[in-house]
Amino acid sequence: MISETCIAPVNIAVIKYWGKRDEELILPINSSLSMTLSTDQMCAKTTAAASATFKENRMWLNGEEVPFEGNPRMQKCLDALKRLAEAEKSKRFPLEWKLHICSENNFPTAAGLASSAAGYACLVYTLANLYGVEKSELSSIARQGSGSACRSIYGGFVEWVAGIKNDGSDSIAIQVQPALHWPEMRVLILVVNDSRKKTSSTNGMLNSVNTSDLIKHRANVCVPQRILQIKEAIARKDFKTFGEITMRDSNQFHAICLDTYPPCAYMNDTSHAIVNFIHQYNETRGDVKVAYTFDAGPNACLYLLEEEVANVLSLLNKVFPNDNSENSEYVKGIPIDLQKVRPASELYNQEIVPVGNNLLKYIIHTKAGEGPQKLLDPEDSLVDDAGMPKKLK
Amino acid sequence: MISETCIAPVNIAVIKYWGKRDEELILPINSSLSMTLSTDQMCAKTTAAASATFKENRMWLNGEEVPFEGNPRMQKCLDALKRLAEAEKSKRFPLEWKLHICSENNFPTAAGLASSAAGYACLVYTLANLYGVEKSELSSIARQGSGSACRSIYGGFVEWVAGIKNDGSDSIAIQVQPALHWPEMRVLILVVNDSRKKTSSTNGMLNSVNTSDLIKHRANVCVPQRILQIKEAIARKDFKTFGEITMRDSNQFHAICLDTYPPCAYMNDTSHAIVNFIHQYNETRGDVKVAYTFDAGPNACLYLLEEEVANVLSLLNKVFPNDNSENSEYVKGIPIDLQKVRPASELYNQEIVPVGNNLLKYIIHTKAGEGPQKLLDPEDSLVDDAGMPKKLK
Repeated sequence: MISETCIAPVNIAVIKYWGKRDEELILPINSSLSMTLSTDQMCAKTTAAASATFKENRMWLNGEEVPFEGNPRMQKCLDALKRLAEAEKSKRFPLEWKLHICSENNFPTAAGLASSAAGYACLVYTLANLYGVEKSELSSIARQGSGSACRSIYGGFVEWVAGIKNDGSDSIAIQVQPALHWPEMRVLILVVNDSRKKTSSTNGMLNSVNTSDLIKHRANVCVPQRILQIKEAIARKDFKTFGEITMRDSNQFHAICLDTYPPCAYMNDTSHAIVNFIHQYNETRGDVKVAYTFDAGPNACLYLLEEEVANVLSLLNKVFPNDNSENSEYVKGIPIDLQKVRPASELYNQEIVPVGNNLLKYIIHTKAGEGPQKLLDPEDSLVDDAGMPKKLK
Repeated sequence: MISETCIAPVNIAVIKYWGKRDEELILPINSSLSMTLSTDQMCAKTTAAASATFKENRMWLNGEEVPFEGNPRMQKCLDALKRLAEAEKSKRFPLEWKLHICSENNFPTAAGLASSAAGYACLVYTLANLYGVEKSELSSIARQGSGSACRSIYGGFVEWVAGIKNDGSDSIAIQVQPALHWPEMRVLILVVNDSRKKTSSTNGMLNSVNTSDLIKHRANVCVPQRILQIKEAIARKDFKTFGEITMRDSNQFHAICLDTYPPCAYMNDTSHAIVNFIHQYNETRGDVKVAYTFDAGPNACLYLLEEEVANVLSLLNKVFPNDNSENSEYVKGIPIDLQKVRPASELYNQEIVPVGNNLLKYIIHTKAGEGPQKLLDPEDSLVDDAGMPKKLK
């Protein structure tokens, strides 16, 4: 048996991907741009093993076996990597050998936290290591698993260039700035307590492309301008411009979702209360100190500089009080020193009226990080010597 | 003392007015189209009295005195009518006489139910009667009080033509179809229990014009097409087309509000749950049987044909259960016969899971109606023989 174990990061888009020009190849109608998050706090982990003795391809996701052959996107990624291995004449093992793939996230899959992006990036990166192939084409292979997975192939700030070719060969991710370019940048992910059913991203964006009258204007006019502007802002570490474009693009993406027929409302009342909180906070501070962005769900991702984290969190705990806020599990990730925070009156020129209790489930504090990494310690493998999962649900 | 008492209707737009090209004259960036609602269920009522003995202009709104001179929009309407009276040499009484104006709504002002539209239409219509002037220019005078008030000057289906002139003289309302054109058409207004602060329409639309990248595309491309299409649909009483355009335009208006910076979220979770309910209902029935539209607040206005009212209401009471639903005050307006409703399974192909309790405050059942009317019975006057309000708060 030969096996490889890798981890891959989550990425959070500041210019959103929404809408495909090709459903099959997963080609977007507009470019998008994200920051890759540190794998220290959130990552997908995958072990891929190949053996002459395996009878069939099998896969386990978070400790549960899932159909392998029935998943066309998975199959597409695997086929592409095998073709690459053949073309590159990589000969680590015969390509006929069956695979056992075991994958898990160290964060809740269901919370709508880009788990498929990390998952597919990890799968593709791990298989590339297993087959011993070059890594230059990996983003376009990951893209075919889940569009935004292509951005998780790189660390730091990453652009997914939409491309114009019909075969999708120019629809790839490129690193705009490395992970260490803006070391003060932090992310607070506010996971919102929510039980509503949501339209899947795949179906939501298909509906938007088919029915929104505004989506073309966004893709053709608004996004190209924003991509240029935000890349400049990132290059010169101009948080104000970065933050404002991030918020505007999040707003516009959700506007397009509402302009869809039937409309998709991914943000809920708690999400909108967070938006109001951030604008109020920035207004009090007289500057853009925090920026929100929302994916296709109610959770907020806040971008902010390190110096602002304790201030925001202490005020957040007042406006969104939580019974667990004293619990160490409530704020996960990079430790926060709540000792040296500014008085609330300097941070918020509104009366502090709690929006409601326990509207947030937990908070993750993280920062920019590197792309996928190969793990060398055999302890890290998710499968045992027989190629079976070490942990099952 | 000489006095006149009139009532004026509320109107609910199906193609929304959002955004001014001239703040002073209240000229819109796009045409809009509404249905005037029957004054039997909702109306503003105004008595305007003039007397040589009145010392100053005074005004009472819903039983409370409000500043008269301090309100520039009020003043603008009054000045325009006095100029008209002078030009037409109408001589019912000397124009120097001071006025007492007493106005009230028979529906809650605070509920965001177009009370200013009905109020200003009523004020202008009543003053026109008081001064004895021609009614041809009233919609453009009412427009300067509150934009959408111009549409309440006519009954039935009314278009507010945006116009192109800088002086606003071509920005007027015209009747598209009379009130009796589509007698089966009904409206259910679902007043949502809500306590959130909202951005005023005036500020919201100003922000949208200044910051939304999508609003121009809406005004220049989407709305003109929709106005043509919905007028045709109304002319041939094609509910399916009417309903679909109505829903799409409501969605797009709220999309523009979200694309605003900072964003305005007027709809809340209950509003979105109503949207889902209506789409599910229509899907089950295999046709567009009900259409929703939302103004700058969380309340839903449902357009539907008479035959559908009892079905929708009975199902609505299951999905949005209310402790008051047996109370005669919960559903106001035209009586509804809940005896002959279809079984829920024919109306809803989803499991009926209540969204939550008491999410609605009350429901108003109404239909299309006529424009403002003059009341002749002295009993209807809101002021006594001395020109003072009969009722004060």
